[in-house]
Amino acid sequence: MTKSLSKPVTLFKSAGRALHPEDTVVQAGDVKIGGGNFAIIAGPCSVESDEQILEVAESVKKSGAQLLRGGAFKSRTSPYDFQGMRTEGMELLLKAKEAVGIPIVTEIISVDHLPLFEDVDVIQIGARNMQNVELLKAVGKTDKAVLLKRGMANTLEELLMSAEYIMSEGNEKVILCERGIRTFETYTRNTLDLSAVPALKEQTHLPVIVDPSHATGKASLVESMALAAAAAGADGLMIEVHNDPQNALSDGAQSLTPSQFDEVVKKVMKVREVIG
Amino acid sequence: MTKSLSKPVTLFKSAGRALHPEDTVVQAGDVKIGGGNFAIIAGPCSVESDEQILEVAESVKKSGAQLLRGGAFKSRTSPYDFQGMRTEGMELLLKAKEAVGIPIVTEIISVDHLPLFEDVDVIQIGARNMQNVELLKAVGKTDKAVLLKRGMANTLEELLMSAEYIMSEGNEKVILCERGIRTFETYTRNTLDLSAVPALKEQTHLPVIVDPSHATGKASLVESMALAAAAAGADGLMIEVHNDPQNALSDGAQSLTPSQFDEVVKKVMKVREVIG
Amino acid sequence: MTKSLSKPVTLFKSAGRALHPEDTVVQAGDVKIGGGNFAIIAGPCSVESDEQILEVAESVKKSGAQLLRGGAFKSRTSPYDFQGMRTEGMELLLKAKEAVGIPIVTEIISVDHLPLFEDVDVIQIGARNMQNVELLKAVGKTDKAVLLKRGMANTLEELLMSAEYIMSEGNEKVILCERGIRTFETYTRNTLDLSAVPALKEQTHLPVIVDPSHATGKASLVESMALAAAAAGADGLMIEVHNDPQNALSDGAQSLTPSQFDEVVKKVMKVREVIG
Amino acid sequence: MTKSLSKPVTLFKSAGRALHPEDTVVQAGDVKIGGGNFAIIAGPCSVESDEQILEVAESVKKSGAQLLRGGAFKSRTSPYDFQGMRTEGMELLLKAKEAVGIPIVTEIISVDHLPLFEDVDVIQIGARNMQNVELLKAVGKTDKAVLLKRGMANTLEELLMSAEYIMSEGNEKVILCERGIRTFETYTRNTLDLSAVPALKEQTHLPVIVDPSHATGKASLVESMALAAAAAGADGLMIEVHNDPQNALSDGAQSLTPSQFDEVVKKVMKVREVIG
Repeated sequence: MTKSLSKPVTLFKSAGRALHPEDTVVQAGDVKIGGGNFAIIAGPCSVESDEQILEVAESVKKSGAQLLRGGAFKSRTSPYDFQGMRTEGMELLLKAKEAVGIPIVTEIISVDHLPLFEDVDVIQIGARNMQNVELLKAVGKTDKAVLLKRGMANTLEELLMSAEYIMSEGNEKVILCERGIRTFETYTRNTLDLSAVPALKEQTHLPVIVDPSHATGKASLVESMALAAAAAGADGLMIEVHNDPQNALSDGAQSLTPSQFDEVVKKVMKVREVIG
Repeated sequence: MTKSLSKPVTLFKSAGRALHPEDTVVQAGDVKIGGGNFAIIAGPCSVESDEQILEVAESVKKSGAQLLRGGAFKSRTSPYDFQGMRTEGMELLLKAKEAVGIPIVTEIISVDHLPLFEDVDVIQIGARNMQNVELLKAVGKTDKAVLLKRGMANTLEELLMSAEYIMSEGNEKVILCERGIRTFETYTRNTLDLSAVPALKEQTHLPVIVDPSHATGKASLVESMALAAAAAGADGLMIEVHNDPQNALSDGAQSLTPSQFDEVVKKVMKVREVIG
Repeated sequence: MTKSLSKPVTLFKSAGRALHPEDTVVQAGDVKIGGGNFAIIAGPCSVESDEQILEVAESVKKSGAQLLRGGAFKSRTSPYDFQGMRTEGMELLLKAKEAVGIPIVTEIISVDHLPLFEDVDVIQIGARNMQNVELLKAVGKTDKAVLLKRGMANTLEELLMSAEYIMSEGNEKVILCERGIRTFETYTRNTLDLSAVPALKEQTHLPVIVDPSHATGKASLVESMALAAAAAGADGLMIEVHNDPQNALSDGAQSLTPSQFDEVVKKVMKVREVIG
Repeated sequence: MTKSLSKPVTLFKSAGRALHPEDTVVQAGDVKIGGGNFAIIAGPCSVESDEQILEVAESVKKSGAQLLRGGAFKSRTSPYDFQGMRTEGMELLLKAKEAVGIPIVTEIISVDHLPLFEDVDVIQIGARNMQNVELLKAVGKTDKAVLLKRGMANTLEELLMSAEYIMSEGNEKVILCERGIRTFETYTRNTLDLSAVPALKEQTHLPVIVDPSHATGKASLVESMALAAAAAGADGLMIEVHNDPQNALSDGAQSLTPSQFDEVVKKVMKVREVIG
């Protein structure tokens, strides 16, 4: 079980399964993830307007999503790309949470923004910040659930070590997320490493979810990869849904419409049933 | 559908779906692969003895495998590793085919060995030879089904171009196989690129199967990846099974026992049912 | 010149050579880098003690290094690894700067630490923070020279975009640093991409330096790669030097001794002479 | 010296430096490579006509190339790309060898073509065939010098194991060639791994040369990488030169004109002098 890690398993003091064999169940609002509890997180890449986030929130909840995602602070490659609605986006997201009655997941990109996350249910650490150790330590000092995305060039061992950064500060509510790694293949935006799901489950008791939207970068590939993730034993999914993908301010090419998402959830549930 | 290929879709004259929208069904013996027909290929990495190949052949057939795999000519990294039983291995494999009544798949590593493949049902081109163009052309001149594995550093576009090499010689019976690509991650032997399944199916009418054994290099990860491949829409699986993995002459670490394989087939079939 | 960038060259408003053909010369203390000015940065991975940093500072200055490096705030994979002497390390580094009379380069890992960098000559953004956009913007608001290291999975285009983040805030004193990218090869810690030097120089007017220490991870390979970087046209080098590599608290395996460093500088200078 | 190889150094029975500390000098015609002898191989990607190969042969010889390269049998990604002049190309190449008095290097892509290589001085095994073990064994039974190119996804250890395949058959005249590996970076065709030069020299006594043309895929980057390779301690270079790059039937974008090549050779020689 331990032979592929370069570090001794006892070094994964908090995240490692060797010392903590029982599956961890992370609670966010009234939603449970892990230990047999499967959760779907859905919503737009970016919060763009009051109407947009409300409309998507209602539709994904109706389709069966347990959590709403939406980016307010965006970490973009170029400073000239849309940087998110920032503080205003946070307000719209919290308003949608109240109006629709659905817990929310949103990304933090700076320690200084932490006070704005008080009513957020799950704080997301994005791939680009997976090894931003000061940010990891800061969320480790909160009592919020943390969704930690794998960096695009990071090994599973490094992902677990970043979880250790959070947990060693006292916060054990960490959810790991595979979202594709960078390889030579250009057909997809990243290469989804689904073997990360059973591999992580061998090494850690933390829940592991999969983001097929960022992994593939193409709406046409999201359904297959969502089904595959469920079949591989993932504890949940994170899927981008937009009410108008063609006019999305970011990541439109990989966003599902609400009706496509509804279809995907139905099929995922069927796979979940037979997987047990 | 075509925007991620660097070459115009009309250049994939034979393999491309743009010019050939209908799914191809490849027949090998009495087995059909593609177009809704799902097939499981199972057997040892290497043929090692009369008893070994017969025992595995019988057991995988009983569990539901449609084809038997077994390597006679091996393409190993080191000249000091076991190179396969070669001609003798071919004879044992053909004997097992007769005795058990199951069509066989085995790898060719040189044009000069072609005469030995007369009674083989599916000729495999391994990952290391995916761009051995003279070998591709040679099997393209036969009427045998060809199982073409993706090279560990090859793009999907290059895989399709290698299929074109075979098909442009007149042989249209090509089955594509995703078996993991080489990345920085070391926990698994390769990184299984399951998005290759729906991506290839967008671009080609050829059947696409998945080899979770070489991809992961670990028996403990094979079941999850087999289920995920089925959920992703693969047309089949290629799984290494050995009657005594711990003493296998090659690839023991990734081989299932016959009873593990039996379990995997049952679960895969359940996923197939709900995927439709 | 521009055909390999996915974004139009005019998007690199500040960093791009298309709009700013002249080489930029970055000044740090009395040292110039770029536009024909070659500079060597040397010192230990981590500041470990008063004696250590003073001893190394004196010796690298004597050998010809123009700047002293030394890490106070470390960004390590594991929370259980040495995290640097932090504030105390900053003090020792500034003391060495005064005592030896050499400008200093040190890494920032959090916006909140900025006030501690007032007397630092060059602020380093490490590979793990290359896309920490809030940190990029924060150093962009200072008037300090910034050494921006390429992330281990980042393209040259993304590196230039991170430079844009800094420059678009008003700070044009950016030095780019190639330090190896992550690939499948395991013999070296990373794979040094030396073609990044002429490639970047085609696209940007900013100085480009090379860090052969982190790239190779092996002291035995540093000299060859330092010479190669100089021959490739780099504007400088960043080399790890430790007075006692075997007992270094971090990165000992890739650190040169002061006498090895002295030898490397002499050879590098000879290559510089013939390259012109 | 040996800690980064997964296999014990004694397994590299023929290629390893552990058992054979002295540098090997490979002779091809009257040209020596290795052990302090530096050689430049130059010429077009493909032999295209009598005039073309003669003109290039004469010009590269005059500029200081010791060997002429030219492809007759081409291994292309697509069957619809130019496949080389094949047997006719071999004849033109041999004619140029006689007329100009320069030994030749050309690629073999099938065991069956071996009889055509009787008067060839150096047989090249291309990157795509680095693990075509039957071809390796076949050239291992000849007494020709063999230029073995690193596969685009192969580790240094695998390259040495492919050299072992040749040498274990009795042919010790193997020259290794670094030509770039496949990574996520798209600005260059491949990523030139120059640390392979000192790394290989730690592990093997065989000569190591560098091909900056295939590595970068861009004529504008060839000079810098040729200089860097010389500075890194390479035993030679392989550079594509064409009398009319814009109309070349293959690889024109990375080919130098004869006058550009002349310039590069002069600068490389200066670097060689100071490196010693």
